[in-house]
Amino acid sequence: MAITLWDLTGAEADRRFSPYCWRIKLALRHKGLEYATIPWRLIDKGVIAFSGQGKVPVIKDGETVVSDSWTIANYLEDTYPDRPSLFGGEGGRATGRFVVDWAELALMAGIFPMIAADINGILDAETQAYFRSTRETFLGRTLEAAQAERETRMESFRRGLVPLRRMLKFQPFISGAAAGWHDYAAFSVFQWARCASPLQLLAADDPVHAWRERMLDLFDGFARKAVGFPV
Amino acid sequence: MAITLWDLTGAEADRRFSPYCWRIKLALRHKGLEYATIPWRLIDKGVIAFSGQGKVPVIKDGETVVSDSWTIANYLEDTYPDRPSLFGGEGGRATGRFVVDWAELALMAGIFPMIAADINGILDAETQAYFRSTRETFLGRTLEAAQAERETRMESFRRGLVPLRRMLKFQPFISGAAAGWHDYAAFSVFQWARCASPLQLLAADDPVHAWRERMLDLFDGFARKAVGFPV
Repeated sequence: MAITLWDLTGAEADRRFSPYCWRIKLALRHKGLEYATIPWRLIDKGVIAFSGQGKVPVIKDGETVVSDSWTIANYLEDTYPDRPSLFGGEGGRATGRFVVDWAELALMAGIFPMIAADINGILDAETQAYFRSTRETFLGRTLEAAQAERETRMESFRRGLVPLRRMLKFQPFISGAAAGWHDYAAFSVFQWARCASPLQLLAADDPVHAWRERMLDLFDGFARKAVGFPV
Repeated sequence: MAITLWDLTGAEADRRFSPYCWRIKLALRHKGLEYATIPWRLIDKGVIAFSGQGKVPVIKDGETVVSDSWTIANYLEDTYPDRPSLFGGEGGRATGRFVVDWAELALMAGIFPMIAADINGILDAETQAYFRSTRETFLGRTLEAAQAERETRMESFRRGLVPLRRMLKFQPFISGAAAGWHDYAAFSVFQWARCASPLQLLAADDPVHAWRERMLDLFDGFARKAVGFPV
């Protein structure tokens, strides 16, 4: 029986932009597990109340409900040990957590202000009101004011990619010779950005750009084919 | 036969302050391998010319010479597979490289200007001339001018520790339940700082401080007993 994934969507039902859902969709493909998605909006808290919390991703696998992308990744690795490993052993699992937290600071926190108004632009009107209210409180200014600073923020963002850029001199993926959880955790943030915004985050000659291209090509171009902006 | 390690030293022969050597000394203890160190100064390039390059760590294991801390770590893991694993599998090895590069940017580059003059202070006069010349070119200002900015740099440095701090909510070490290469790669930078400078880099209530305490306790307090400043 296929796994069900509640997957964040914009005004268009096929614009699936959550980085946390993207890393799980890629993890499910990595494991070769069948799944079906249910589009879910930020304001549809009641729909996923059965999970005991209010955020996606949520998966239902048979009678088992799991939420939080890190918890889901560990669930998939432990429940389907005969499928290709997401982590590549216990050291990879442990550092999988570190990469999640690095992606949160260096990627998410860096990119969010630069595309805050663009994200709002892909939402339906009802969700926009919720998004604007909660995110402007978080940012301490309007979405448009935050996004207007993108030129001055870009250099610092790209400098923060140094660990990723340097690592790519040694190997094609963070997880090593082939992509794995560490790559999905980081790439999903770039995929979130391209689903929501035309902003070009990476210079064409950046090794991080070449890595992102490899990630877009995985699973027969799965992420590249998704509704989003060209990068 | 014991492994020989050329180990960076200050004016006092026992003040061994290189982060790259520290991560190897910890890796050698992790593997339970006997080793002897030879103190080496930054200007003693000729002494390690046999290694084909001019930086420590350099190890000699029988007739095998290996330099560069990442290369040495891989050599130890592959040459002594029956000893405790440094990486915890191939995923841990791959992300071992990522943590090295993260430590370089978030830790080394953040700390160096704050302790540049203090490092100079632990060197002998001959090495000081070399250090000042090369490092002031790198910094674009005097060692003292760089260090004078430490108060204004500290907040940004501590904010950059967020990935480490958040990860520590989930597990006691970066490598997981027990310390491994990822911890040695990151901790070695804090150990470098405390060997050279009395600057307090971490607030006492920071979870990163508690992790550093655990690292100082490893191997019967090996790093804590080293010549350095209290933290």
